[in-house]
Amino acid sequence: MAHRATITVETRGRGTYDVTARVAAALEGGPDLDGVVHVFCHHTSAALILCENADPSVRRDLEAYFARLVPDGDPRYEHDAEGDDDTPAHIRTVLTQSALVLPAARGRLDLGTWQGVYLWEHRTAPHRRRITVTLIT
Amino acid sequence: MAHRATITVETRGRGTYDVTARVAAALEGGPDLDGVVHVFCHHTSAALILCENADPSVRRDLEAYFARLVPDGDPRYEHDAEGDDDTPAHIRTVLTQSALVLPAARGRLDLGTWQGVYLWEHRTAPHRRRITVTLIT
Amino acid sequence: MAHRATITVETRGRGTYDVTARVAAALEGGPDLDGVVHVFCHHTSAALILCENADPSVRRDLEAYFARLVPDGDPRYEHDAEGDDDTPAHIRTVLTQSALVLPAARGRLDLGTWQGVYLWEHRTAPHRRRITVTLIT
Repeated sequence: MAHRATITVETRGRGTYDVTARVAAALEGGPDLDGVVHVFCHHTSAALILCENADPSVRRDLEAYFARLVPDGDPRYEHDAEGDDDTPAHIRTVLTQSALVLPAARGRLDLGTWQGVYLWEHRTAPHRRRITVTLIT
Repeated sequence: MAHRATITVETRGRGTYDVTARVAAALEGGPDLDGVVHVFCHHTSAALILCENADPSVRRDLEAYFARLVPDGDPRYEHDAEGDDDTPAHIRTVLTQSALVLPAARGRLDLGTWQGVYLWEHRTAPHRRRITVTLIT
Repeated sequence: MAHRATITVETRGRGTYDVTARVAAALEGGPDLDGVVHVFCHHTSAALILCENADPSVRRDLEAYFARLVPDGDPRYEHDAEGDDDTPAHIRTVLTQSALVLPAARGRLDLGTWQGVYLWEHRTAPHRRRITVTLIT
């Protein structure tokens, strides 16, 4: 049976949160075999991305770009039950990803030198986000 | 060997089609083990997304947003062999996804409460779309 | 243990490179079983896409579209340490994908008729890109 663990992230609202170390830690206790690591966010208004992990200005540019690409409060949105950022959070999630699949080498994350795993909270308010990590070998 | 099944969807043209129940049904007969479910669309002008499954206005907003983001009939497109929606369907597919990988718990789909699996037909005309579902444990 | 291989691609700068045959070749020596193929790019400024493999004008349209969607040299970008295409390459990678997961039937790639696997170099200068292919059954 696959090795499986849960991560919970308490976000402080819109922005990117580095979860690389937590995903790596979730693999502890699993087999020391090659395979893939599946990282899954159980929500439709937050996403997971791989991004450059050295210079935070890359992620500031990403955030500013997405704010222009999917503007909050566009009067053409029909769905605003939870506020100006409701539909944008869903669109941003579809444009990014709910799941990442990453290589595992001998049971450990095998990312590129500059790749970090980030939870991207797309809502402006803080949320509790559940992530499932599964190691398949 | 992995558990594998095929789903065929007859679309009525551009729009989102809920296939969550069909993906869940495709897992029947597979092992009751933890793992991941791979859902794959064998086409380059239709995609798969995870989206909010409660309020249909979210998907109407998504459709309207993508129509603005990737306009049909832009004269700058070179490829229009199959019509005004030909290149847009390919671009929309690249901006969304051909495959979803979802968690499986004891052989069953383990999605978030509000997550549904949708086939997104990006062409305006009806098409027959083939989806392969694979359970890996 | 999963079957695993590495592909190295020397790009000539921005553009799409068909790696379908190389991914298929990387599966040789693996088990003849059903499962999934994970293809992963270890970089944050190049991506992998599935795209129509018959008419190259589709990919020219994709490239032109992304150049308009994520313009190089936008003065609002903060991060330009490596040039006008630095932040755009990161944004384009997030809008596309670092990994593809594809179906395998009896140990071989099981794509749709018109689906090809492309490395999309998002930087304007040539780069060496490392891709890991893993077959999970």
